[in-house]
Amino acid sequence: MKKYQLMAPGPTPVPTEVLLAMARPMIHHRTPQYEALFVEVRAGLKKIFQTTADVIPLACSGTGAMEAAVVNTLSAGDSVAVVRAGKFADRWVEICKAYGVTVVEMTAPFGHSVPAERVAETLRTHPGVKAVLTQHSESSTGVLHDVRGYAAAARGTDAILIVDAVSSLGIADLPMDAWGVDLVVSGSQKGLMLPPGVAFCALGERAWARAKTSTLPKYYFNLAEERKALVRNEAHFTPAVGIIVGLREVLRMLEAEGLASVFKRHDRLARATRAGVEALGLELFAKATPSPALTAVAAPTGVDSETIVAAYSKTHNITIAGGQGEMKGKVFRLGHMGYAAEFDVIIALSALEQVLADLGQPVDFGASVRAAQKIFAEKS
Amino acid sequence: MKKYQLMAPGPTPVPTEVLLAMARPMIHHRTPQYEALFVEVRAGLKKIFQTTADVIPLACSGTGAMEAAVVNTLSAGDSVAVVRAGKFADRWVEICKAYGVTVVEMTAPFGHSVPAERVAETLRTHPGVKAVLTQHSESSTGVLHDVRGYAAAARGTDAILIVDAVSSLGIADLPMDAWGVDLVVSGSQKGLMLPPGVAFCALGERAWARAKTSTLPKYYFNLAEERKALVRNEAHFTPAVGIIVGLREVLRMLEAEGLASVFKRHDRLARATRAGVEALGLELFAKATPSPALTAVAAPTGVDSETIVAAYSKTHNITIAGGQGEMKGKVFRLGHMGYAAEFDVIIALSALEQVLADLGQPVDFGASVRAAQKIFAEKS
Repeated sequence: MKKYQLMAPGPTPVPTEVLLAMARPMIHHRTPQYEALFVEVRAGLKKIFQTTADVIPLACSGTGAMEAAVVNTLSAGDSVAVVRAGKFADRWVEICKAYGVTVVEMTAPFGHSVPAERVAETLRTHPGVKAVLTQHSESSTGVLHDVRGYAAAARGTDAILIVDAVSSLGIADLPMDAWGVDLVVSGSQKGLMLPPGVAFCALGERAWARAKTSTLPKYYFNLAEERKALVRNEAHFTPAVGIIVGLREVLRMLEAEGLASVFKRHDRLARATRAGVEALGLELFAKATPSPALTAVAAPTGVDSETIVAAYSKTHNITIAGGQGEMKGKVFRLGHMGYAAEFDVIIALSALEQVLADLGQPVDFGASVRAAQKIFAEKS
Repeated sequence: MKKYQLMAPGPTPVPTEVLLAMARPMIHHRTPQYEALFVEVRAGLKKIFQTTADVIPLACSGTGAMEAAVVNTLSAGDSVAVVRAGKFADRWVEICKAYGVTVVEMTAPFGHSVPAERVAETLRTHPGVKAVLTQHSESSTGVLHDVRGYAAAARGTDAILIVDAVSSLGIADLPMDAWGVDLVVSGSQKGLMLPPGVAFCALGERAWARAKTSTLPKYYFNLAEERKALVRNEAHFTPAVGIIVGLREVLRMLEAEGLASVFKRHDRLARATRAGVEALGLELFAKATPSPALTAVAAPTGVDSETIVAAYSKTHNITIAGGQGEMKGKVFRLGHMGYAAEFDVIIALSALEQVLADLGQPVDFGASVRAAQKIFAEKS
């Protein structure tokens, strides 16, 4: 018996109690039952997004909500500035291009970040820029970008700040209102430990003001219509009822744990994973602030990272992820987000030692676990 | 104890075995496990859509797939002709307007249909029309439109036929290839008895040819990109994994029942419901061919149909649906699609008798059930 372990950077495992909540009989979405559910979910989402703004769930995956963010706040011919240092940043660029929005790129090599000063400088030299688009946690490289700094850079300019928090919501602290982030996008299948299929947009006042003048075409992703439906505690179109039912359970779990504790947990898991990986002589791929959601690791010299991913799966029944795009073959990625706890990290590192040894790499057995254990032994 | 019964025209009940299949541990969507699942699902979908074309699942509700159909086959300034005789037809019109597509309306009063000859005539008088858009089953009125006739009318013209089969797939016969329908849209939460959150587009060769020249903007709903991902047995973006897992179970159930039997079952349920309703002296709202998915009933004179819907819910714990838009207060709708069988109809009619009596209407108790029983007693 090899127990199946899902340790990719999303989708993450779904707690059994949430799976079983979603297995309850289907209810209709235009009923008092759904309204009561949705009232609770809306209130819980505001806490997780750390905002007084409405959080709008959409029946789609994260990319759909990214597109919603663009088409609801921008108009054809607008210019935006994109923090581009990974595959998910590429997605912002592609969405903008698909809708005729001009992109000013602020690039950094994969594994690096773009300093807030550069964002500020770009907004000074390009005063027509209508929005800054960034990831918070860039899942392809394992880097956490300086969203707080970007928000400060955008403050007082005409640019709104749009943040892809798909792999940071409920993982890394992102106080939307306190930092002054104008639009936060996220998804169900990362920190919220749900199946993929629901994504979110939270718009602050500056973003809603933009929505009033935005001329890009939209229908399914028309957030102004969703906002009108919220007054009736409904979704504009048929919602993904099952996942919303699961979301109520997850929000209760996160509320019970406490958001500060949730962030601390992820930070510990991430530090332990990094310590373990480095104790085996491996190099972290992230050269900038690492994300608490996942750890991207450079494969040892001469080893294709895809063989590491395959060995995890075939020998240990564990799903991790390889590198995307030009990082394919060079990077493997360990997720430790959402429904993830200390002994999951111990499993991931134990398996890594076995995998490396099987691939003929020199391994000091137990070294990665020892390093992780030291982190876990730290008092709070 | 009042057992909960979901008898609305979608979402429909999800079989317990499907709910439990979806409660299995989450898997990742870029793995051999998912690939094996998706291979089976793709093959099963082709049978249900009765086509050799690829059926593309999207993580969205039915409206998203309707938008995908429009933005992938049309270009700004194109003209289309819409069969407009219900609230879901309005949606086609709204989507087209949002994207700058000109609509030639072929209207009929709610409860009626548009004859195929009128579609043919419209295509003759408007030779520039690029597509005919219609519902198959119009859920707001309970009418089944003559898709076979529309396909014949569109054949040999420049117009492709795009059909919203959200509430007819796996319910009413719609042999896409045999009838020559160019694009069929459907959703997970009706005939496929799944939670809402997945929708489908199946494109024939003429529709794919259009996709090559279509200039309307799209990203999340870019079907050409989805088609490329199909070669790898993947979705382009993160799919709604849980619902796709459930879909495999549903496709196996439908395969075991046999598609012809599935259609026959729905036809019997619909005929029994109509006979029962009429036995109580009520009038069917559909004056044209009625849909086998649901029965729309005109409320008795002097009775607000919303009070009937409320009484079903409050007194009997049964969810049915009222009228939409201008039909609100005048119509109530009984769903008998998807996971629906004979004794569900008996329940719905028994409850109707009780509800009408409670509202002070004269009721010949048992009359509706007797009429339904006679239908069910018919030999195949």
